[in-house]
Amino acid sequence: MAADYVPAPEPVARLIEAFNRLPGIGPKTAARLTYHILRAPAEEARALTEAVLAVKERLRYCSLCQNITEHDPCRFCQDPQRDSSAICVVEEPLDVLALERTRGFKGLYHVLHGVIDPMDGIGPDELKIRELLARLRDGRVKEVVLATNPNLEGEATAMYLHKLLAPLGVKVTRLARGLPAGGDVEYADEVTLARALEGRREM
Amino acid sequence: MAADYVPAPEPVARLIEAFNRLPGIGPKTAARLTYHILRAPAEEARALTEAVLAVKERLRYCSLCQNITEHDPCRFCQDPQRDSSAICVVEEPLDVLALERTRGFKGLYHVLHGVIDPMDGIGPDELKIRELLARLRDGRVKEVVLATNPNLEGEATAMYLHKLLAPLGVKVTRLARGLPAGGDVEYADEVTLARALEGRREM
Repeated sequence: MAADYVPAPEPVARLIEAFNRLPGIGPKTAARLTYHILRAPAEEARALTEAVLAVKERLRYCSLCQNITEHDPCRFCQDPQRDSSAICVVEEPLDVLALERTRGFKGLYHVLHGVIDPMDGIGPDELKIRELLARLRDGRVKEVVLATNPNLEGEATAMYLHKLLAPLGVKVTRLARGLPAGGDVEYADEVTLARALEGRREM
Repeated sequence: MAADYVPAPEPVARLIEAFNRLPGIGPKTAARLTYHILRAPAEEARALTEAVLAVKERLRYCSLCQNITEHDPCRFCQDPQRDSSAICVVEEPLDVLALERTRGFKGLYHVLHGVIDPMDGIGPDELKIRELLARLRDGRVKEVVLATNPNLEGEATAMYLHKLLAPLGVKVTRLARGLPAGGDVEYADEVTLARALEGRREM
């Protein structure tokens, strides 16, 4: 919006607009980024454009887990050290990185690339669910860990997948809910606290 | 930092790093932007890279006012409708856009491209002050409006310029200080309120 009122040179207005189109970047931040690029060394600008192009040109989806990868199958799917009897289902590639950082999961992943969201017109067919079912066909996978986000759409998607997968004889689990590390009982929201109570464990 | 721990494909890690280098963009936002680019249509990514390159290739500084421009002299400096007897001195090109939006100034501009900041090793010679003095040489400019930011460095730069320009016989003015529109006396900081009092005007 604001970019329209700005009597800036055309290339400036165009870059402000391009930055502004990125998620979470408003017109003011877009203007700041643009002026940063203007003043930055040419190599920094070139590094940015080349990195953008490389991401579009060199990456694809792994034909097995649908995660983004340079080589198909991806390094998780072709790693013999990973436990191929467990698949962790996530919404987005970023979730894989978050889970890997915990070093707590040694199985394989499956990226849905979204969640069921009727408000946005996204049904099960828009997600990589068919591809997940194909991976379960040979019976080698014993457990599917549902790691969708703990919000409305994530829960709905987990419920849908649970109904779909349970009849296949695979164990379907869900990430635990409870108090976050460093959290505070006093300030925890009701839902989180209720879930923490439900899921209480003997010490 | 965070990007180092991420077992992401190399192009992803590289784009996260490139976004992370932009001002105000931390590793998490950089990751989000990267995944946005991954999923965005190829045209959106191309529009961004072309806009970045256009800004670096097609823009230069106006040889008169030092503002960024596609054509030298810039459209302000070559506009006969502008009042060439007044020059408004600003820190950055963004400031010109902000002032233009007010439609309150019909003169020309001069962009310093920074402020005097000894902590950062930026002295008067690093700014476009020589170029400003050159514009005052023929005596056609009657007023210089100092519109540097109302902070320590901006004030110091304005003081420096005032001392430098006053002996040349040009009128040197400074943007007024006072309560911002929509502001609140009760919540105004002391300095702002003191300035508003000092600058009070008869109604």
